[in-house]
Amino acid sequence: MAIQSITEQHLEALSIGAGVLGSGGGGNPRYDYLMARQAIKRHGPVRLLKLDTLADDDFIIPLCFMGAPLVCMEKLPTGDELRALVAHTERRFQKKVTALVPAEIGGGNAFVPFFIAGELGLPIVDADEMGRAFPELQMSSVHLLEPNSGPALLADEHGSVVTIDTPDTKRMETIGRAVTVSMGSVAALMLHAMTGKTAKEALIAGSISRAVEIGETILNARANKKDPITALVHAQNGAVLMQGMITDIDHAVNEGFLRGIVRVDGKISGELVYQNEYLLARVGGKVAAMTPDILIMLEQESGEPLTTDRLAHGLRVAMVVLPSPTLWTTKHGLDLVGPRAFGFDTDYEATWRQK
Amino acid sequence: MAIQSITEQHLEALSIGAGVLGSGGGGNPRYDYLMARQAIKRHGPVRLLKLDTLADDDFIIPLCFMGAPLVCMEKLPTGDELRALVAHTERRFQKKVTALVPAEIGGGNAFVPFFIAGELGLPIVDADEMGRAFPELQMSSVHLLEPNSGPALLADEHGSVVTIDTPDTKRMETIGRAVTVSMGSVAALMLHAMTGKTAKEALIAGSISRAVEIGETILNARANKKDPITALVHAQNGAVLMQGMITDIDHAVNEGFLRGIVRVDGKISGELVYQNEYLLARVGGKVAAMTPDILIMLEQESGEPLTTDRLAHGLRVAMVVLPSPTLWTTKHGLDLVGPRAFGFDTDYEATWRQK
Repeated sequence: MAIQSITEQHLEALSIGAGVLGSGGGGNPRYDYLMARQAIKRHGPVRLLKLDTLADDDFIIPLCFMGAPLVCMEKLPTGDELRALVAHTERRFQKKVTALVPAEIGGGNAFVPFFIAGELGLPIVDADEMGRAFPELQMSSVHLLEPNSGPALLADEHGSVVTIDTPDTKRMETIGRAVTVSMGSVAALMLHAMTGKTAKEALIAGSISRAVEIGETILNARANKKDPITALVHAQNGAVLMQGMITDIDHAVNEGFLRGIVRVDGKISGELVYQNEYLLARVGGKVAAMTPDILIMLEQESGEPLTTDRLAHGLRVAMVVLPSPTLWTTKHGLDLVGPRAFGFDTDYEATWRQK
Repeated sequence: MAIQSITEQHLEALSIGAGVLGSGGGGNPRYDYLMARQAIKRHGPVRLLKLDTLADDDFIIPLCFMGAPLVCMEKLPTGDELRALVAHTERRFQKKVTALVPAEIGGGNAFVPFFIAGELGLPIVDADEMGRAFPELQMSSVHLLEPNSGPALLADEHGSVVTIDTPDTKRMETIGRAVTVSMGSVAALMLHAMTGKTAKEALIAGSISRAVEIGETILNARANKKDPITALVHAQNGAVLMQGMITDIDHAVNEGFLRGIVRVDGKISGELVYQNEYLLARVGGKVAAMTPDILIMLEQESGEPLTTDRLAHGLRVAMVVLPSPTLWTTKHGLDLVGPRAFGFDTDYEATWRQK
């Protein structure tokens, strides 16, 4: 049951669902939620396009913010970055944009196209490139289909726009990261501008609807005084891997990433490693779940997902895992976003699914 | 007596003259000299255009390499960066380039347009933006006339091209420097693409001829067993400020700059502060000369100019100062390139000229 348009009433559920699919990354969705709400209040609901209804010659651009989530909290988007991105993209491609799409459904980035869709009179495609959140540019379903589908355009709130053309994805990431840091550690990004034809082949369908659905599951459980954690793992075929209190957090921002480790002690103890997103869970000294499965930390009582920048000592939490979008567990998918892509010396396994 | 075209025979004099006008920066001209020689051997002499002969609708692009000179020595240009720059500039402006110009006559950058002029069948304008070398993007005669005359295009040897559009010159510098570091601490740069009309107003005329003339002064003195230092200061209205042996060098590369201090002890002792270029000379504990005057370290016997990356303990040297191009000693010029622009707490003075 896909949604036809996103109204103010969908935004809270979208915020929670995007937080869950964010796997801890993509920035704190509450701020982006507020900005999207303001835009929808002013310009009205945003039409959502089903992926398979796109015309082949549509021109679709993914939007997101790139950077370290701790910094995003200190430096809010103004919208000027996104206006500059759309204008420079249209100039570069000599084509009018026909629809926007979130680059990643996970975290605050789910809301980014909503900041300007209404103002520009553009619909948003109910899809994304990740089906969750990931920390690096090449970790995208479009990249998986068409490597080197540049250019990347980065913009800051002063209207500076940097266009990166390179045949080499590693260099795209290295240069893009350096530009982001020089723009104040957060920048608006347009990467993988594509035709409707490519979008239909490459994007992950229904991501926005799915996020709203996840959010509604948690909100309904709360409203009915049921346990939101149980409701979530039941509705999304997940599992609870840790339950207890946060007793240790060790993290730092460097090279534009927030990297760290968080420890939970209680009913089921364990620890969770992250690099913007939660990547690997250890329970009882053993690896219990890992990327590309969706690892999430939630407040036990409310079921509110916790981004890596909102972890705090003493919080009562549950750590939940949801299954990865299927394209990421293929061989090529794992090369891009499996545990080895993040420097872990282990092959992907989903032993938790057997329990 | 302006030169009509640059042949292989001019290159050695150009190399020495560019080294002198480089004021220690712009990279070691010997490597660029060799690359330019190879290009001229293959494609023939390069036509030199007098600045005042340009047509108003000509399309002129300045080229140079940006980065720390120590790194340039370890990573030679391939020409691919420059080809990528010209192609992307023509695409961006939807105009064919009609002539190249060196962004700075000082140091190796004097030769950069010669790497590809012959191959592309393009002439070079006998001019530049600095009349010497300077370490930052905004230190340009074009910028002095028309601030924010972007975009900047940066390219690496893998064909990656980064286009920076920003209304803010400080951000242009910050972002450009970050991109350069991410490209391996050296990048080819196209900044201040301009019409012939703007070029005639903004560029410093005759820079290439002047560099060749300076080089010939030194080469002729050597050939006639005369002192090249005396010949140079006589021909160019300069002065000798230090004479002796290099006894101390303290420098480091950071943020893409080579920063340091070199000490000379002997007949006239003193020290020279640099940031890619030599910026301030102290003799007898007092400031004796400073930017924008052209400060140079030369080997005493040969008159060979020493870039900051070629300083070595025990070398017998003379430190010479030549007068700045006049546009830099105006109020606006000093705001851009005077001692305070480099963080020195002193006003510009040229007391050495009175001696």
